[in-house]
Amino acid sequence: MKAEIICVGTELLLGNILNTNAKFLSERLAEIGIDIYYQTTVGDNQKRIQEATLNALKRADILIFSGGLGPTEDDCTKEVVCKAINRNLYLDKRALENINCFFANKQMPESNKKQAFAPVNSKILKNDVGTAPGFYIEDKDKIIILLPGPPKELTLMFNKYVVPNLKFNSNFTIKSRVIKTIGIGESSLEEKIKDLIDAQSNPTIATYAGNGQVDIRITAKASNMDEADVLLNNMEVELDKRIKEYIYSYNNESIEEAVFKMLYERKLKIGFCESCTAGLATSMLANIPGASEVLERSYITYSNLSKTEEVSVKESTLNEHGAVSKETAYEMAKGLLEKSPIDISISITGIAGPGGGASDKPVGLVYICLATKDKYFIVENKFHGDRETNRLLSVKSAFNLIRKYLLNLI
Amino acid sequence: MKAEIICVGTELLLGNILNTNAKFLSERLAEIGIDIYYQTTVGDNQKRIQEATLNALKRADILIFSGGLGPTEDDCTKEVVCKAINRNLYLDKRALENINCFFANKQMPESNKKQAFAPVNSKILKNDVGTAPGFYIEDKDKIIILLPGPPKELTLMFNKYVVPNLKFNSNFTIKSRVIKTIGIGESSLEEKIKDLIDAQSNPTIATYAGNGQVDIRITAKASNMDEADVLLNNMEVELDKRIKEYIYSYNNESIEEAVFKMLYERKLKIGFCESCTAGLATSMLANIPGASEVLERSYITYSNLSKTEEVSVKESTLNEHGAVSKETAYEMAKGLLEKSPIDISISITGIAGPGGGASDKPVGLVYICLATKDKYFIVENKFHGDRETNRLLSVKSAFNLIRKYLLNLI
Repeated sequence: MKAEIICVGTELLLGNILNTNAKFLSERLAEIGIDIYYQTTVGDNQKRIQEATLNALKRADILIFSGGLGPTEDDCTKEVVCKAINRNLYLDKRALENINCFFANKQMPESNKKQAFAPVNSKILKNDVGTAPGFYIEDKDKIIILLPGPPKELTLMFNKYVVPNLKFNSNFTIKSRVIKTIGIGESSLEEKIKDLIDAQSNPTIATYAGNGQVDIRITAKASNMDEADVLLNNMEVELDKRIKEYIYSYNNESIEEAVFKMLYERKLKIGFCESCTAGLATSMLANIPGASEVLERSYITYSNLSKTEEVSVKESTLNEHGAVSKETAYEMAKGLLEKSPIDISISITGIAGPGGGASDKPVGLVYICLATKDKYFIVENKFHGDRETNRLLSVKSAFNLIRKYLLNLI
Repeated sequence: MKAEIICVGTELLLGNILNTNAKFLSERLAEIGIDIYYQTTVGDNQKRIQEATLNALKRADILIFSGGLGPTEDDCTKEVVCKAINRNLYLDKRALENINCFFANKQMPESNKKQAFAPVNSKILKNDVGTAPGFYIEDKDKIIILLPGPPKELTLMFNKYVVPNLKFNSNFTIKSRVIKTIGIGESSLEEKIKDLIDAQSNPTIATYAGNGQVDIRITAKASNMDEADVLLNNMEVELDKRIKEYIYSYNNESIEEAVFKMLYERKLKIGFCESCTAGLATSMLANIPGASEVLERSYITYSNLSKTEEVSVKESTLNEHGAVSKETAYEMAKGLLEKSPIDISISITGIAGPGGGASDKPVGLVYICLATKDKYFIVENKFHGDRETNRLLSVKSAFNLIRKYLLNLI
């Protein structure tokens, strides 16, 4: 089964928005075993939508359109596609009712009536979060699916109403898992799993590096989900043998989610004393529902004065070693630990850039300290990114330090 | 001049990555007055790259390729395109030297030599941040541009080496500005500028809503940049007449950048006491280079205990009114102001969700207080997003409160 994705929208051709629909549809189709050979994007233009449709009909079994189902004059995907396959439109009363419901107490604008016209002999795909219904059309040996452009509407409709139909048409399943690693670069990681990469066939292995982490996507092709899972499980065992200490999730979690779960299971409270990251570490942890179970308080000690006042960093330490130093990092973590009812204290102090660097203390130098009642650990990092990247990498490094501490890897 | 963008990469067809190159190229081409009718994405596959090339040659004047210039077997964009236009490749010594330089003290892998092969009679586009050079080929009345896939390499190469060539080929210029508003919804805003929207021709006006803000893109078409600027300036005057109080930037800045500049100019220090946003506000402000000029310290008082210990919220206030209340917000801001050498104190306390809501205090209820020595202001928000959205909208609302205070709008 080959599919082609056709995205309709002048805003895409003008570069006003990112085409997240193409990514979403491609990823989901791959998962259910349907190959994509082409993604095409055209504007709200009848001639070019028609050309794209006719091209795709020649080379694909399934055509999936996104966009152009709105109420305005411009929106013409449905009309053009139906013309291309000689299919008439009729006013579907139930679709019209659904659209009407969407306006609740307000009067439905007349223009929205256009959205209730459906291709004859098509399945109407309900839109639970917007006015434009989608359509599932079978035309000879082709399947044509029309979906609304807004990503929230498209993703919900695709998962809920399209996937159950499409799965039926595919002979095998493709299942992927994303295994997340931290604390190792892409080339070193690839070296450690080189034998697996070289010998790969099913599952396949691919690595993706970014933001201080390397993800490994393993993808299995099998006749059903259970068989695919067995293949993926076996590959995970092999990966574990080689790089277990760097793997923090087998399930595409973020590092902060993984750390949150560990803290939660162990009933541990944590706090941060952040300088260059200025709340980013705490904020990322707090983004996880239930964070209040593990997060007690944090300080953002941006000025030197706040470091002495809030977490008792000695003035002499700041004078002798500077705010970006092992010594200050240690006192920040220690001060926070003493002041708050927490089990683990983390401090982060560094030079995010672009200014503030010196030859002995360059931009990207960041110290992180983890302190508990009995122990402490200090990590020195040298990052080479811009301000935003250096701050993010600092936070990632801090979370990795917590992970390693909780797993007794340090 | 019509251009077509052809992105090559199996990772795009698998939905592993977002196609940021297509967005970037489309946006930049629109700015310099070149229309795009199609974006096509194909995998690392000779047959389909060839088909896409031949299709594009029929319908476009300029073909811009991204991806497939790497050193591996898979990478074949250059080879396929050259075959399609009957152009030979030769080993370019200077290109080879440049690639060699990139490996500095390490030995260049033999495979990278492939990247130094250039189409005969092409301009070689230097890659300042990677090994793959790009190519600018003129073939009869067509222009074919090959760019490397990694976004950092592509954007730099396009801006530095392609745009100066392409501009020359276009008779007019399109220039856009993004005007940013906050504190007003899209439909209310459109109502206020309805006359401008209805009468638009040049410049055109389009609104984009997202994350609690509405952006207005105005786009002018003119024979040169200066003329375009005049048209845009005139439109800005008209927008000012209607919605000035909501506009915080005429130059596509973020709200935190705009607030930072105002604080910096007025030499004011600020601090935050954050509960549900847990450092997000401080972190966003700290992401701006020079933030230490305005940011002194912040507290993240996540637990009730930390609210009383750190910023002197009364236990009776917490008991009587709860942590999410006007009263607590006020005491948080007041407590922070009294403890720190700052001019403006901001507190944020709310229920981000998904749990923690009640009928009298639903998820999304967030109080923000701004306190100075003489005055204070409290804002009550009711957001309807998920946890992440509610936290972000809270921060945006806080920055808008600061902006309004500094501009004497409250």
